[in-house]
Amino acid sequence: MKMNRTEIEADLKKKLSAKRFRHTQNVVEAASNLAYIYGCNVDQVSLAALLHDCAKYFSDQQLLQYAKKHHLKVDRVSRYNQQLLHGPVGAIVAKQTYGVEDVAILHAICYHTTGCKEMTTLDEIIYLADYIEKDRSFPGIEDIRKMADTNLDLATIMALTNSICYVASVGDLIHKRTIDARNDLIIKNKKRK
Amino acid sequence: MKMNRTEIEADLKKKLSAKRFRHTQNVVEAASNLAYIYGCNVDQVSLAALLHDCAKYFSDQQLLQYAKKHHLKVDRVSRYNQQLLHGPVGAIVAKQTYGVEDVAILHAICYHTTGCKEMTTLDEIIYLADYIEKDRSFPGIEDIRKMADTNLDLATIMALTNSICYVASVGDLIHKRTIDARNDLIIKNKKRK
Repeated sequence: MKMNRTEIEADLKKKLSAKRFRHTQNVVEAASNLAYIYGCNVDQVSLAALLHDCAKYFSDQQLLQYAKKHHLKVDRVSRYNQQLLHGPVGAIVAKQTYGVEDVAILHAICYHTTGCKEMTTLDEIIYLADYIEKDRSFPGIEDIRKMADTNLDLATIMALTNSICYVASVGDLIHKRTIDARNDLIIKNKKRK
Repeated sequence: MKMNRTEIEADLKKKLSAKRFRHTQNVVEAASNLAYIYGCNVDQVSLAALLHDCAKYFSDQQLLQYAKKHHLKVDRVSRYNQQLLHGPVGAIVAKQTYGVEDVAILHAICYHTTGCKEMTTLDEIIYLADYIEKDRSFPGIEDIRKMADTNLDLATIMALTNSICYVASVGDLIHKRTIDARNDLIIKNKKRK
């Protein structure tokens, strides 16, 4: 069923917790700002942002069941941290429940938590907006916010690096897609120099 | 040509810089201690330690040429940081120049810098000895040394984590084998609990 933007927002407001819905609104705001800075389609960016956490209220078991039902590959790290599936599952929910057919939006939703190889500008904007939206607070965030205003790739590298070090420091498994994403962007920027 | 231990040591002393040879001796000492603690074959462990950096004096170009000549897969990260090839190239040098045929030793030499999936006890000992030998000095090393005396897996996880955070913090590319190694060991230890 295809829903319009107002219907999607109303539905998410019902389904997500107040805190998660506020986070979603903040990501829409941050992503829209980035879209403006980097000359992207604001409607596309803000719809991806609105839907990025549309499967975040699923339990671990629901995520796993949904993933299995839709033949998603559940990699080893996601088997141990099933919440990582809320991106790939969210992409399917965005398509099936909210009628989104723009594959660029679905791709950005799918990879917004781990990052991925060869991130598009839209992927980077959603990843970064999720990381630096106004309610987020952690050491170094102001540097990333400042960089996001001028260089999207470097800000994304900073966010990926920060995320890897945080995950490593708390003893969690690191997803290889995050390493791919960071290595890719560093190499892309080396080549530009 | 098969060389005995004394001949290998004499040859390495000629080829490696004084600093690198001292490091090698330190790794032999640290690895032999770990072999003793964990009940491993000290001859095997100390030979792997002696040879772990046998290709470390090669230039970037020599490493790349050697790798190509011997059909080693040069992955993307190693193309950008060619010194990472000194492990895989070292394994071939150990076989061809020094006549080592023990595949467990060659494996430990090959992966001593990046780590790898499903590390053996020998792999972990060489990786760790290289990381904590007595001349090494960095924040947190004493904690890793202490852990190495009682739990080889946990000490290796600490060293891998430290290494990932260091490489990330200086802006270098992270090798996916290091992530594989760490994820593997964490999962192995979760299963044991």
